Amino acid sequence: MPKRDREATRARLLEAARLRFAREGYDATSVRDIAGDAGVDATLIFRYFGSKKRLFDEVTADLPAGLPDGPEEELVARMLRAVVFHDWTRYGGEHPLVAMLRSSAHDDARQRIRREVCDTYVDALRDLAEGGDRELRAELLSAWLVGIGILRSVVATPALAGASADDLAPHVEAVASALLGRPMRGAPGSEG
Amino acid sequence: MPKRDREATRARLLEAARLRFAREGYDATSVRDIAGDAGVDATLIFRYFGSKKRLFDEVTADLPAGLPDGPEEELVARMLRAVVFHDWTRYGGEHPLVAMLRSSAHDDARQRIRREVCDTYVDALRDLAEGGDRELRAELLSAWLVGIGILRSVVATPALAGASADDLAPHVEAVASALLGRPMRGAPGSEG
Repeated sequence: MPKRDREATRARLLEAARLRFAREGYDATSVRDIAGDAGVDATLIFRYFGSKKRLFDEVTADLPAGLPDGPEEELVARMLRAVVFHDWTRYGGEHPLVAMLRSSAHDDARQRIRREVCDTYVDALRDLAEGGDRELRAELLSAWLVGIGILRSVVATPALAGASADDLAPHVEAVASALLGRPMRGAPGSEG
Repeated sequence: MPKRDREATRARLLEAARLRFAREGYDATSVRDIAGDAGVDATLIFRYFGSKKRLFDEVTADLPAGLPDGPEEELVARMLRAVVFHDWTRYGGEHPLVAMLRSSAHDDARQRIRREVCDTYVDALRDLAEGGDRELRAELLSAWLVGIGILRSVVATPALAGASADDLAPHVEAVASALLGRPMRGAPGSEG
């Protein structure tokens, strides 16, 4: 196969794997399902990725990176928009953390989630927090963002599923300010 | 088989199913696994429960019920203790909602989670909330409890995994009071 075709096939397999793992979790997904979605033979998965496990690693390592820049008093508002209100269509409509959670019976999926949550959210929030107990308060605020994402997309509780980022702004301001021990804004450009 | 033995076998199957579904999710669990854990033949699952799906329904319908009674300003503190700090050994060490989440690619598992979250948490919190937007604020507080449970048990972020219910008390008081628009206590019997 010419190199260009190999690259295209590899990309198609990654795309199919991302959706399958997101929707159904690691265990329920077979390499045959993924190959079928991509319209290729399952042996290609082993040739290109080595194993289902390595394919999963590659898919979950390829998460959308980082948060947009902005003033630090808007950090929580930016996180909320990036995590909860992002368009996750490419990942089956849900934040990839949910997919990892669905596969969380596996220790390495757990470790991956922990690293992801700690590196992306907890660390940045801890650096902003004032007063004692900063690590715990940063984790409590990260827990809230994760919980909002789950209730909104997986559980679909009625008020959250129908809410806009602006509807949440006053509550984000109240909770973020209470947990970080400093005034935070609920929306970009809003009054603190 | 005498009736007493049938009852004992049925109970053993439920116990084994509860652990398997909790640890591995619905899809990754086979009736053969469950029967093997219970030390019986898989055909008994179909005889006693009809199908894997009905067995799952029975296991997840059998959740520990309700919250202990107490003053309403301590409701969130009681919920936190009941949900996050409960001993879930019987369910594989995690709140059964996590198991349902792991099976949440299935629409009926999602509906079950939604009912569970709304009936047990959101409704009671909404009834306590003061001011406008009560439904949304009750869901936001429920999201926090769900998120704390997940970060503590599945993701195991370091500060939360090591925290006691008392460590969380001041933060519970701050966040619950902010979201419900009225003074709440962070721990049973604590000053409001």
